[in-house]
Amino acid sequence: MLLYNSPVSGNCYKVRLLLAHLGLEYETVDVSVVDRARRPELLGDLNPALRVPTLVLDDGRPLAESNAILWYFGDGTRYVPENPYERAQTLQWMFFEQYSHEPYIAVVRFWVAYSGTPERFVDQVAGKMEGGYAALDAIERHLDGRTFLVGERYSIADVSLYAYTHVAHEGGFDLAPYPSIRSWLDGVASQPRHVTIDA
Amino acid sequence: MLLYNSPVSGNCYKVRLLLAHLGLEYETVDVSVVDRARRPELLGDLNPALRVPTLVLDDGRPLAESNAILWYFGDGTRYVPENPYERAQTLQWMFFEQYSHEPYIAVVRFWVAYSGTPERFVDQVAGKMEGGYAALDAIERHLDGRTFLVGERYSIADVSLYAYTHVAHEGGFDLAPYPSIRSWLDGVASQPRHVTIDA
Repeated sequence: MLLYNSPVSGNCYKVRLLLAHLGLEYETVDVSVVDRARRPELLGDLNPALRVPTLVLDDGRPLAESNAILWYFGDGTRYVPENPYERAQTLQWMFFEQYSHEPYIAVVRFWVAYSGTPERFVDQVAGKMEGGYAALDAIERHLDGRTFLVGERYSIADVSLYAYTHVAHEGGFDLAPYPSIRSWLDGVASQPRHVTIDA
Repeated sequence: MLLYNSPVSGNCYKVRLLLAHLGLEYETVDVSVVDRARRPELLGDLNPALRVPTLVLDDGRPLAESNAILWYFGDGTRYVPENPYERAQTLQWMFFEQYSHEPYIAVVRFWVAYSGTPERFVDQVAGKMEGGYAALDAIERHLDGRTFLVGERYSIADVSLYAYTHVAHEGGFDLAPYPSIRSWLDGVASQPRHVTIDA
């Protein structure tokens, strides 16, 4: 398998983390998240959104969207629940991640730490951080009294939300007021075969 | 079942459309998409994101995120493919919808047609429309030579992307340059038990 990858992208890290848990081998092609000019040429036939991660299976079929890739490899393993309601909750948290979490926390982190031009985004950071803290508030409330997001077992919902939450500080987010999130981050990092984002 | 609903929200319409296909009965509580002050009281215990649709099952368990609700009811029916790769493609298009389509096309439509204060958003419309047209370009390219988004069969991926695409003109989007999208919209609307967004 071939993973069109970015070493700093949390979306790509999700896929690398699950594939590590599953012990699956793959090769990577690193794609810039700053200079996007070559993407149509590189990804045009593989991913309509021209984003990474994009995965090409051994038989050549492409798959895109980080959380869809997690589902593809996770379903049928211990990382996706079997119960229909818990399966829907797993998806609920992954859609929450893409709509209410990533566009704030990942975007601020990119602007501040990886864009190379943080000054271009100064006016927009405060509004985006507000959205990011709203997402963190929602996760904290849910994790109060829970070990993992769904069914008290580590799942791809945790993989998905861990990816950008554990590096939120790079965007300036302060996790000190979020004790349940901090315990949960530790719980994720202590799973068998865990790999770090810079592994 | 009880659906916390908005009559004008495409996200809520997705759920109403699939439940109509499946012949499932439910009651609705309409929630304002403009005045959001009562949402913590109304939805705080049901949906961490405080958004509609939020569905409460007959046994009282809540479920949120439109596309997760589609999966919950669709899986095991003709509206979700059985093949693992096609299942992942279905999710791929639904994550595309929430990340690359809804935040542009639905948001512009809301600003222009439903917010009551379109003048507040004038400066932001052009940038959002650019993102919306990029999403439409991606769908058009994919639908060229295809009848439906995944596996040549109508699925919840089509339900998901139909919801805001078929009312994109309310936000000022022009679908004239998108013949494959227009044929596909007709194909969706001609499915058995189809209901309109204002039904």
